[in-house]
Amino acid sequence: MKNITKPTLLLDKKRCLANIKAMAKKAATYDITLRPHFKTHQSHEVGAWLRDFGVTKITVSSLSMAAYFAADGWEDITVAFPVNILEINTINELAENIQLNLLVESLETIQYLDKNLINPIQVFIKIDLGSGRTGIQPDDFKLLDRLISVLQLSNLMKFAGFLGHAGQSYAARNLEQIKAVHEASLQRMNLVFEKYKDPYPHIEISIGDTPTCSRMDAFGCATEMRPGNFVFYDLMQEQIGACTMAQIAVAVACPIVALHPERQEIVIYGGGVHFSKDSYVHDIYGLCYGLVVEDLGDTWGMPISNVFLKKISQEHGIVKCTEEFIKNCKIGDILKILPVHSCMTVDLLGVEVIDNE
Amino acid sequence: MKNITKPTLLLDKKRCLANIKAMAKKAATYDITLRPHFKTHQSHEVGAWLRDFGVTKITVSSLSMAAYFAADGWEDITVAFPVNILEINTINELAENIQLNLLVESLETIQYLDKNLINPIQVFIKIDLGSGRTGIQPDDFKLLDRLISVLQLSNLMKFAGFLGHAGQSYAARNLEQIKAVHEASLQRMNLVFEKYKDPYPHIEISIGDTPTCSRMDAFGCATEMRPGNFVFYDLMQEQIGACTMAQIAVAVACPIVALHPERQEIVIYGGGVHFSKDSYVHDIYGLCYGLVVEDLGDTWGMPISNVFLKKISQEHGIVKCTEEFIKNCKIGDILKILPVHSCMTVDLLGVEVIDNE
Repeated sequence: MKNITKPTLLLDKKRCLANIKAMAKKAATYDITLRPHFKTHQSHEVGAWLRDFGVTKITVSSLSMAAYFAADGWEDITVAFPVNILEINTINELAENIQLNLLVESLETIQYLDKNLINPIQVFIKIDLGSGRTGIQPDDFKLLDRLISVLQLSNLMKFAGFLGHAGQSYAARNLEQIKAVHEASLQRMNLVFEKYKDPYPHIEISIGDTPTCSRMDAFGCATEMRPGNFVFYDLMQEQIGACTMAQIAVAVACPIVALHPERQEIVIYGGGVHFSKDSYVHDIYGLCYGLVVEDLGDTWGMPISNVFLKKISQEHGIVKCTEEFIKNCKIGDILKILPVHSCMTVDLLGVEVIDNE
Repeated sequence: MKNITKPTLLLDKKRCLANIKAMAKKAATYDITLRPHFKTHQSHEVGAWLRDFGVTKITVSSLSMAAYFAADGWEDITVAFPVNILEINTINELAENIQLNLLVESLETIQYLDKNLINPIQVFIKIDLGSGRTGIQPDDFKLLDRLISVLQLSNLMKFAGFLGHAGQSYAARNLEQIKAVHEASLQRMNLVFEKYKDPYPHIEISIGDTPTCSRMDAFGCATEMRPGNFVFYDLMQEQIGACTMAQIAVAVACPIVALHPERQEIVIYGGGVHFSKDSYVHDIYGLCYGLVVEDLGDTWGMPISNVFLKKISQEHGIVKCTEEFIKNCKIGDILKILPVHSCMTVDLLGVEVIDNE
């Protein structure tokens, strides 16, 4: 590990590999394809670790990210975001070199692609699994029939199947609630599966949010899962009940720049441009932007009781702590802090791998 | 303006120049140095516009940013963030080439600098103006005397004066509240000014948050102001009462990727990695991440009633709108959206200048 002088996102390789191994094993056990979402890590290096576990198909959330991973040799990429038709040139460039799978939810988009594509792609139809963000209702067979029939007539688009994301699992706070979201999602997917499995025997049913993929053991009609966050996890996933504290594989290392023992507060170099402004409400601490963990040299231990990131501005973070804790701190020390939402933090900072395998 | 295909932060040059001109005029009128905070724009181009208005001294919030602007010929830079001693090498490199002004609030930091500096710097002592984030209480003369006496003995550090930031002005919601914050800040600064003006007749008294600098007309003992956000403004500043809607000089252009007329919702390509997750509570709409404005080709007009960014995830934004509005939208159209916190949005996206001068 290089010398840390600025806010740095540390990645514990050992924990990360254990998280990947567990998910790969689950996918193998239930005979479901693992097509992990790479928006969480956005890293060629972490991508290579997933490849070592047999992953060949991946998910991303933008065409820019697809291009980044195509350049690293990934040849089967799903962009799990409704097609942005303004990026048709990028779509055509990518589809020349890789198996590009796009997501649609409207006739307008399909018609636009049909007119403007110059290379073949596969198309997933987005199903709303209940989160109400995007997608078609799974019982809207009239619209689904119409979209599929237009896809069938296209020379360059192949109908691949249905894709959904149960984003509402992020509101769950225990196993029972995760299970309820998962079962409702599978019921919705089952509607389209039962309707279309005979005319289209090879359709894919793609699901995938980290909480359900991490904790559930039955995937019904689903043929592939697309969890992303599981490679690192974070405090939000721990709150949901998707992981344990010990599974969280990333921590932000931040220099101490000021100490205020009179109010038990530590000022760190580390703010919204490093952590993002994602927060959660901790049972005891209230609004919380991160938890300070025990420093174990190359890695870290459990959160330290009553030591947490209570406030952030653009570059500053304010750590609220105990009298005991602040006594042992000095300016220039590094605090290690578990982030609330690792995907956002990685997007801002990139990762510094601790090779502790 | 280039063809927009992805979330893009547009900067209206005309409005930006008007904002700069107004602040430069105010500083000249009240004979106070304008040392603008460059963290808002982080742009050599916008920096050059400020230079055209006579600005020669600037503020930044990190040493990396100081290096970025030093490389563009800025020779007098204050880093308005408590010194991070771990970056001593960068400090020494910068201080070789420019007038570097650093911020301290502890004896430990001063002693560290005294031992490790190899080039001369100027030092501001941070005064807590009531925000309780960082700084020394302005009546803690024992500590202030001690710090100043150590600075006086140093060969490479010159005591420049006192610096404060009334961050609590961001909680203000009208002129009266801004004024209350401003007057309390000046009273605090006056304590140190009166105490130290005789032994140190050239001390600087540096203040500077956008709300007070924008709206106040008396600056008491202050010798310099460091507003940053005023070059662009944003919805937060409009909420505070620091600017009008028409003064907001940046808007995020986002492609429409899906339409849901049944629930009057539009899905845009534009989420937390573009806007940041900063939000505010709108009087009527509740939690709000941005306001959609009338599109006027190269620029934009006023917010459209009942059309706002109600939810964002990593890449998605959900615009809540009216039946009337959604009827005239189609997939691939661009929506222009005023951001809540322009500093954070610029940090994520950079700016695309609309040269409409």
